[in-house]
Amino acid sequence: MTSTAQTPKNTPLGDAFHVYDTTLRDGAQREGITYSAADKLAVARLLDGLGVGFIEGGWPGALPKDTEFFQRAAAGELELRHAALVAFGSTRRAGVRAEEDAQVRALLDSQAPVVTLVAKSDRRHIERALRTDVAEACAMVRETTEFLVGEGRRVFLDAEHFFDGYAFDPDCALRVLDAAVQGGADVVVLCDTNGGALPLGLSQTVTEVIARTGFRVGIHCQDDTSCAVANSVAAVQAGATHVQCTANGYGERAGNADLFAVVGNLVTKLEMPVLPPENLGELTRVSHALAEIANIAPDTHQAYVGSSAFAHKAGLHASAIKVDPELYNHIDPATVGNDMRVLVTEMAGRASLELKARELGVDLAGQPEALSNVVHRVKELEAGGWSFEAADASLELLLRNEIKDDPVRLDEPPFALESYRVVLDHAQDGSVISEATVKVHVSGERVIATAEGNGPVHALDAALRKALSPYLSWLNSVELTDYKVRILPGHPGTDAVTRVLLESSDGQAEWTTVGVHGNIVEASWLALCDALVHKAMWDRVPQASSPA
Amino acid sequence: MTSTAQTPKNTPLGDAFHVYDTTLRDGAQREGITYSAADKLAVARLLDGLGVGFIEGGWPGALPKDTEFFQRAAAGELELRHAALVAFGSTRRAGVRAEEDAQVRALLDSQAPVVTLVAKSDRRHIERALRTDVAEACAMVRETTEFLVGEGRRVFLDAEHFFDGYAFDPDCALRVLDAAVQGGADVVVLCDTNGGALPLGLSQTVTEVIARTGFRVGIHCQDDTSCAVANSVAAVQAGATHVQCTANGYGERAGNADLFAVVGNLVTKLEMPVLPPENLGELTRVSHALAEIANIAPDTHQAYVGSSAFAHKAGLHASAIKVDPELYNHIDPATVGNDMRVLVTEMAGRASLELKARELGVDLAGQPEALSNVVHRVKELEAGGWSFEAADASLELLLRNEIKDDPVRLDEPPFALESYRVVLDHAQDGSVISEATVKVHVSGERVIATAEGNGPVHALDAALRKALSPYLSWLNSVELTDYKVRILPGHPGTDAVTRVLLESSDGQAEWTTVGVHGNIVEASWLALCDALVHKAMWDRVPQASSPA
Repeated sequence: MTSTAQTPKNTPLGDAFHVYDTTLRDGAQREGITYSAADKLAVARLLDGLGVGFIEGGWPGALPKDTEFFQRAAAGELELRHAALVAFGSTRRAGVRAEEDAQVRALLDSQAPVVTLVAKSDRRHIERALRTDVAEACAMVRETTEFLVGEGRRVFLDAEHFFDGYAFDPDCALRVLDAAVQGGADVVVLCDTNGGALPLGLSQTVTEVIARTGFRVGIHCQDDTSCAVANSVAAVQAGATHVQCTANGYGERAGNADLFAVVGNLVTKLEMPVLPPENLGELTRVSHALAEIANIAPDTHQAYVGSSAFAHKAGLHASAIKVDPELYNHIDPATVGNDMRVLVTEMAGRASLELKARELGVDLAGQPEALSNVVHRVKELEAGGWSFEAADASLELLLRNEIKDDPVRLDEPPFALESYRVVLDHAQDGSVISEATVKVHVSGERVIATAEGNGPVHALDAALRKALSPYLSWLNSVELTDYKVRILPGHPGTDAVTRVLLESSDGQAEWTTVGVHGNIVEASWLALCDALVHKAMWDRVPQASSPA
Repeated sequence: MTSTAQTPKNTPLGDAFHVYDTTLRDGAQREGITYSAADKLAVARLLDGLGVGFIEGGWPGALPKDTEFFQRAAAGELELRHAALVAFGSTRRAGVRAEEDAQVRALLDSQAPVVTLVAKSDRRHIERALRTDVAEACAMVRETTEFLVGEGRRVFLDAEHFFDGYAFDPDCALRVLDAAVQGGADVVVLCDTNGGALPLGLSQTVTEVIARTGFRVGIHCQDDTSCAVANSVAAVQAGATHVQCTANGYGERAGNADLFAVVGNLVTKLEMPVLPPENLGELTRVSHALAEIANIAPDTHQAYVGSSAFAHKAGLHASAIKVDPELYNHIDPATVGNDMRVLVTEMAGRASLELKARELGVDLAGQPEALSNVVHRVKELEAGGWSFEAADASLELLLRNEIKDDPVRLDEPPFALESYRVVLDHAQDGSVISEATVKVHVSGERVIATAEGNGPVHALDAALRKALSPYLSWLNSVELTDYKVRILPGHPGTDAVTRVLLESSDGQAEWTTVGVHGNIVEASWLALCDALVHKAMWDRVPQASSPA
């Protein structure tokens, strides 16, 4: 099997502090997430690479994909360098012996070396949802824990609805924790299951529970008050040594505590080395990779790892940032693998456009007129729905076009469009076919080419490649790696427009271009042309190793 | 002018507690937001309708749109029932008299009755960015405040980078606050400008500053540690009586403290009536309307007001929720104008699909086979990229199709497609034309119609309407109100697919449908057909006042 380790390996704090990830179980409750077993293996590998201490893989027996995940992990598909693998499940049902409960057997069968049992610790839930009494609820916890520990498993207890339960009936809530510890559990995790807690109150409860019980305490927070990260950190400050979170805060309702923000705060603010230090620079990359697998657009404004987390817009700041970047960022973005960016918008004005040009390697020194022209042009385009904030390559083309004698700009575009036509047919038999014809001029020739594709943009891209690739040797290395569509509602009196962002790659560099038009196909065409022109421009600069 | 009030009106706490919104100034710093002056007026009206105490409208003199906003507000375009209008700006420059500083004059010219002055309170910023000394920085604050107060303005001070500044040199930071109060400011706002604070430390500083100065203290938090809401609430618990936030947390980098979460927490957790109680039920609507104006998709997972904030997915919970919804939500969603939802996904299983059917008014009682078929069908479609979580109308059609003798389902679809063709032409003159032809069967006739549109989907919709409207009287009342496109990257070995969500309205009800296909136009077509079938179905049910 994958690993029988029950403690984190090769991490600075070892078993003394647990970063416990539950993306694959609680994170998967988020609206819109559906992991396959293969996705789950990929997520686990990324989290392990980061160095988290525990990875909760799912609920074997309850969900077929989770059962499959544990089977494949046990069969050797998952090798963990840092983390211990955890199976999540409930205690035995009321009135059944632990060893005879199918759900408990499934936990054993998963072969996960660590098991987290969930149990109700709020008397109202015990009586109204479980329909049993506190004594039996405690017996369920104690006996199930005892059984699993007897079978060689390490057991943690997730005490559901703990904070509400403790406020309502502290004695009952503490009895449930006690039952787990009596049974052999070594961490009791206080869960703010409905997410209604605030840091000061939660922190007091954690302090009190530790003082009254002496147990090793963990924390699990939901984000319903928008305080999950703050609550998790406050619990650690109050003595919790095990913190449960999910990648990017994925989870039911408003989500869970975001692993990246919790770790960022613990490491950079509280100076707790909870991950191997050499992995911190991977936080941003891993966050985005996990968003990809979850098939959710990364939250650009996410703390620490969002693409906007260190993006400065205000003209006021932009000028000062030139002098002293550390005065304006709470940490050095490189610490977490992120970058500072200066955004080009009408609010930013000349100072940030100048700074941005420098970032892109465009020399505006002594060309105040070029700068004015670019500022004017950007404003004009933005009024029509364009945005260059995420499209550096299109902005670079725009900048270079304004500069006299720019050494990089092409004298001639690599190709010129005469016209294109796209035809979409939904035939009587239900089949749908997209076909595009382009007429272009390249290397002094007029070329006509037709191709089919899955959709109109794909067909257009295919036809253009067919027409150009005999003439442009670099074209085959260029791939479209991402395509984003945004419908911008029109302002009163105007029609909606479509904004397309296109990410391209040549295997070495990636660059992003933008196109805006009332017609989605034309918007895509504009972004596509910029992408190819940008590549052509950099391709013939001998010393340039990579565009953008 | 709009109003000369300097205190909140018709709010439960009057001037004793300030909910101060800075969406129009600090919120507008968010990457991707560009407000026109008209947008700003619309935002201010919505915020005022909610009952916030202060609306910071922008930075007159620094940004032309902000100057225009204040002019139009003063000219009578903005009538405020609750809020006082605030202009934001900096103090006089070093070495210039306040009354002669153009920026300070612009604040007066804005005619806003309240002015918030921003000033640096961190000695490093004073010395390195302002390039002056603490004495002159304090004089700039005191004299500018004095001048504006002398002109009849109420003045607040935003002490920039206060928490870092106080940690570095507490004496300097307090001198800046003192200068403002000497000049006549009545609130000093401690700003966590780079957003690096955590609640426990921030709360201690607020307590200490209040104890040492006795000043009226406000709080302004950025979200770089993902703790802006928690920090704001902690500051209030420590004695701050003025809290600055932005709608949906919009703001530079990771954003600001979210008005809706801060207000939700203050009202429902700390029982502070900071808004007129009759307006609380508007929070969700206003949050979404403000997202519309900002042209940013609402954050579905936002605390309190997100469409998923009370959405339950787990099969485990779904069955228990039927019994006791209040055990699973931290507040009654109706308090903030939100709804509980049950999500239909493979994880939810039969229990939640049954609950969802009840929510949609579909009777599955005694039809276990129909339920099984729907569960199977939903799983199958989800594997292909479909998602019904946001498309109740498509799900309803799917449900009713499986039920024997459903009283609402149409015996015949209102129309049947034979084929369609869409042609897109980018002509040599650069013009782009989309034209669609549909061949449909309706009321026993075969109809062919052709129409043009801005883009392929628009043309297809136009052609379909042209073909059908002579036969279907209700068609003209149906409008497409929103159109969302999501590209779903393919899993290994599969192509990407496009998911389209279509929101329709007939002026009374709104309903959402979904279509998924490798081709964006076909995906749109599928969603469009569902939208029209759903309307046709409800249109002929006599007692039904509204679909979905």
